[in-house]
This record gives sequence, structure tokens and C-alpha cells, in this order.
Amino acid sequence: MPSFSIDQIRELTVRIFVQAGAPVEHAQQVAAALADNHLAGHDSHGIQRIPQYVGAVLDGAIVPTASPTVLQETRTTAVVDGNWAFGQVAANYAADLAIEKALESQVSAVTIVRMNHTGRLALFTERGADRDIAMFMAAGSGARYTVAPFGGAAPSLGTNPVAFSVPTGEDHPVTLDFATAAIAAGKVKVALSKDEPLPPGAVVDKHGQPTTNAADYYDGGHLVPFGGHKGYALSVIAELLSGPFSGADAYTNNTKRTGGFLFAVNAAAFRSIESYHAATAAVTDRLRSVPPAAGFDRVLVPGDPEAASRRARSLTPLEIPEKTWAAVCAAADRVGLSAEDLLDGAAVGS
Amino acid sequence: MPSFSIDQIRELTVRIFVQAGAPVEHAQQVAAALADNHLAGHDSHGIQRIPQYVGAVLDGAIVPTASPTVLQETRTTAVVDGNWAFGQVAANYAADLAIEKALESQVSAVTIVRMNHTGRLALFTERGADRDIAMFMAAGSGARYTVAPFGGAAPSLGTNPVAFSVPTGEDHPVTLDFATAAIAAGKVKVALSKDEPLPPGAVVDKHGQPTTNAADYYDGGHLVPFGGHKGYALSVIAELLSGPFSGADAYTNNTKRTGGFLFAVNAAAFRSIESYHAATAAVTDRLRSVPPAAGFDRVLVPGDPEAASRRARSLTPLEIPEKTWAAVCAAADRVGLSAEDLLDGAAVGS
Repeated sequence: MPSFSIDQIRELTVRIFVQAGAPVEHAQQVAAALADNHLAGHDSHGIQRIPQYVGAVLDGAIVPTASPTVLQETRTTAVVDGNWAFGQVAANYAADLAIEKALESQVSAVTIVRMNHTGRLALFTERGADRDIAMFMAAGSGARYTVAPFGGAAPSLGTNPVAFSVPTGEDHPVTLDFATAAIAAGKVKVALSKDEPLPPGAVVDKHGQPTTNAADYYDGGHLVPFGGHKGYALSVIAELLSGPFSGADAYTNNTKRTGGFLFAVNAAAFRSIESYHAATAAVTDRLRSVPPAAGFDRVLVPGDPEAASRRARSLTPLEIPEKTWAAVCAAADRVGLSAEDLLDGAAVGS
Repeated sequence: MPSFSIDQIRELTVRIFVQAGAPVEHAQQVAAALADNHLAGHDSHGIQRIPQYVGAVLDGAIVPTASPTVLQETRTTAVVDGNWAFGQVAANYAADLAIEKALESQVSAVTIVRMNHTGRLALFTERGADRDIAMFMAAGSGARYTVAPFGGAAPSLGTNPVAFSVPTGEDHPVTLDFATAAIAAGKVKVALSKDEPLPPGAVVDKHGQPTTNAADYYDGGHLVPFGGHKGYALSVIAELLSGPFSGADAYTNNTKRTGGFLFAVNAAAFRSIESYHAATAAVTDRLRSVPPAAGFDRVLVPGDPEAASRRARSLTPLEIPEKTWAAVCAAADRVGLSAEDLLDGAAVGS
């Protein structure tokens, strides 16, 4: 299996997207996002996404030269036009604007219209953590529905991810970051190929009946929100905030109707930061000291798994499955780069 | 079974809390909250709570004469001191302050310290809906932990409710409103008494192992968050916002460490209200028109069940179980009111 340092992951990603027409600074933002997702242990949002993004650039869905702009704003709010730039570039811009406004006015809300795929939302909600800004984000998934509403027999929602990061004063914030769909479609495929049952509550068959048989999904079935009616409620809130609330539906093109919603709030508005950090540590320490259940090593706080992965993975080369690497090379080839061009001047293990 | 009109429910609740020492205006707020919870179909948060609140007044945990005050504020934020007033009074006050600030500055965040039990959070997050204010609220449950963290074998969280209301332009907002615990402890008791299995994923035994046997709960088991690690993440975010973020832990007394966090945002800051309402209706109509799964009459949007209940229940007397009514009368007796005093001048069916 080929392996790369994180610097190599970043470098090859920059090369591909610069070759695809992006300014270096935008390519670097996409590369930083994909590399950070690998570091966080979420390889599904790493360079595996390069073929998708290259395809989107070639289709015109991503405009690599576009930069986000502000359509309207107040001291505490803004509507950011992603202008179909890379989703990561638009979301970084919106998150930084929300942070700036929250530092000045304590609280802010920023929406994004004409936003492309962003990957993990934690990347954006965590951007204010070292300045003690808590941030929430919801993103829509566009008009290709894969998730059936609670009690429904047809899909009418996207995977509708949400994230919420709360600063801590430790080396990483507490971060909730998940799709409101119970599982990713990719996991259904894996279960089918391994002939394994799906977890309960993740999929319904074509009649809307719960099933753990992956084959039922491919016979007209659908994903469902996690956690029954509660997760469904969260999915609908994410749909409304990222869509109607953001204004995203007013800026469609042929393929997309995706938007984002962020709010940011400054912890310093409510108490001294010192006492805030101490109170937060009291809660996270209390949770981490709970005796683990059978089968668990220890109790973690949301964000701990990613922080642990980041510590481990920053020290060792990252193994990339052959199939993923071949797809990345094929995507590079589509923009006129050979595998040698990607790695030129960079030592690569295998 | 005794039955009462909603006006009678309000009136008897006012009489009890006035007799317990509350100003009429505070007693009316508590009465309106309990009555509205009945209307919404959530009898568990109706007059069944009167004995708990009377007990809290007599114990000194609720100070019936207290009014909330503002400890510190900016144009966009405030820390509200509940002063151990009725939780409903403090939360109404904080929500209205958040709405006022959001109408003026588009966005606001308000925390509550020294806050008593509030009941359903939807009552507060829905207060701004007719002025197109979306609102989020999280509340802590104090230091009596009943919910084990994901992967843990001991409780270290409360039921940590959250609510999120998004205005629609219809007769009711879309409202998420739930405890982040999978089920209420009361439902475990019911399952045990009926010798029925619990739903999967709701309870763990004393070793932290999932179980559907209610008896395991009473043999040292615990509640868990809904939806596995995702619901756990939401529970921790609610814990941090309502606790450390709010500052609630800095204002303890012997019995409580509860706080609240609200965030409000004005839909009018992002697009015209007309286009916002139309876009929201497009989403809610789309969801409601999904064909129902087997066993469901139709697909509902979060908040629809409560709205339907409100329509039905506002027309007919409300039946109150004998046991609940006896407990309410006993609570009334503790403050020196007879059942006749409660109903004096009010026609009561039976």
C-alpha cells in the first residue's frame, strides 16, 4: 500500500487543483482540509475526495477560480455567496467572518449560498476555538435525496451534517460532528459485499419498514436519520437552516441547491475565560473518569478520538489503499498530471 | 377520571402557586406553561408537576417571590440570574430578552444561572416564532446524574434537553424538542410494571452493557443518550452550554447547579420574509407529502404532533388520571387549599 507523509498529501493535492485551474491559495485550503481529515482519522474525507472534486471542476460544478463574496451583512450577520468556489474555501471564509463578527459583537450568524461540498464541518466550527468562540454549523446536501423522513417510505432529505464546537482551553475543543443520517451509503455497500447485517435503525426497505439486510437497501430502500424521531428532527432543522434560512434555494443552478448556516458565540461574553476553562475542564474530566463499559477502553469526550488520531498520525506516514491511490492518479491524469508529477521531488514509501 | 377545561387547569394552578406565595403574574406563567404542555399532548409536563414544584417551594429550592434579573449584558448577550424563581418565569424572561435583542441586533445569546426546572423547552424557543426569530435552547439537569456517557458504566450526565424552533409563516414553527436521554426514567418503570422489553439502545446494565430488560436498570443500570455516540455528543454539548458556558456552576446552592443557554437569530437578516416563508413551506410540504411507511398514517414535520394535539385538546375537556389528581390535591393541601378551594366557582366534570 503506498504511504505518504501529511506534507506529501498536501503537496500532491495542491498540485492537482492548481493544475485544475485553482489559485495556489485555494488549492492550499482544499489540501489543508483533506490532510486534516486524514489526521483526524476520517479517511473518507481525505484524498479519496480528489476524483469527486476534479470531476466537479471539469463539469463546471466547482469554479476553481471563484472566490466567496459577501452579498449582504450587518454587524452580526452576513450572507456569503460561495460563487460555486470549492466548498472548503467558501466555508473557511464564512467561518472566519462569523468569528470576526463574534469577536467584535459577541454573537454572529452567517449563511452560505451557492456552496459546494465542504467535507467534515468540524474543520470550520473549530476555527474559532483557540479564541474561545463556540460555533455551530449545518449544511444541506442539495436536491439529491437519500434519507427517508421518520415514518416515510421515500427519501426526501440529504445526509444533512451538523457540527458544534465548544472551546475548552485544552489542546482541542469538544466537537460534535456528524451526518444526521444513521450511516453513510458507503457502509451499506460494505455490509452487502461482506454479507454482514446492518446496525438496527440505519436503513428501511422500499415500504419504509426497518431492516438490517443491506440487500433491501438496493431493492428500493433508503437511509434514515439516526436515533429515530429525534435524529429526524435534527435533520429537518439542518435542512431548514441550510436551505430556506440561508437563502440557498434562491441561487440555484442546474445541479445544486446547497447552503450552509453558521452561528458563533464568544464564551467571554458570559464569564471570565479563566473560570470558563476551569468549569469546562471539570465537566470533561468528570466524563473521562467514568469507568468504561465492557468492551471500551475508556470514556471519551466528543473530539477526543480525532485529537488522539491527530497525535498518532502526525508522526507516521499515512497508508493509502491502492484503489484510492489509483483513483487519485486517474483524476490527476484528467487534468494532465502524471503520478510522477504528483510526487516529483517527494520521497514516497510503498 | 376527573376532567377539566384548559381554563380550569390554568385557574387551579394559579390558585395553588399564589397560595404558595407567588405573585399572581408568576403563578399565571407557571399555569400557562403547564396548560400549554397539556395542550401540546405532553401530560408528563402538565399539572402532574404541581406536587414537585410545591415541594420545591416548601424546601426553599424554588423562591416563589423571586424575579429574574440581568447580571451582565451587551447589545447581543445577557446573563440572566433566575434567582431560583420558578424555572418557567426565568426562561420566559430570558427568551423574551433574547428575542428583543435579536429583533434589534439580528442575533443574540442569553444564558440563565440559578434556574429551576422549566419543563418543555419548546415553550421558550417558540416564543419568537411569530416574529420570525429562530431560537435554540439547551438546559442542564443539575448534579443528579442519571445518564451514562457513551462507552461508560456509570452515570455522569443529566437528561439534558435541547430545543430548536425555526419559524415558518404557518400557524406553528418547526420545533425540535427532546431530552438527549433515549427515554425517560418513568418509561423504564412502566416497562417493568408491564413486564415489557425496553426499546434497544435506551438503557445499559450495571456493567454498561446494552439491555432491553427493565429489571437491569433497577439492578444498578443507567439511562443512556439516544442514538449512540451521536446523541451522546449532543448531550455533552448541552451540558457544556448550559453549565460552563452559562456560568451556572458559579452560582450554586445546596441542591442545584442548573443553567440554560439560548441563541436567537432573526430570519429577516438573510432574505425577505416572504421568500423565506415560501421556501420553508416548500420543504415542509415536500416532507409531509412523502408516502407513509407501513404503520404510519402520514409523515409529520417536528412540531406537527403538538400542533394537532393543540387543535384537538382546545375543544374538549382534559382527562386527568385519578392518581395525578389526588397528588395535585395533596400538594394543594400542603399549602392550605382544599380541593373545593381549587374548583370553587368552576364547573368540573368527572
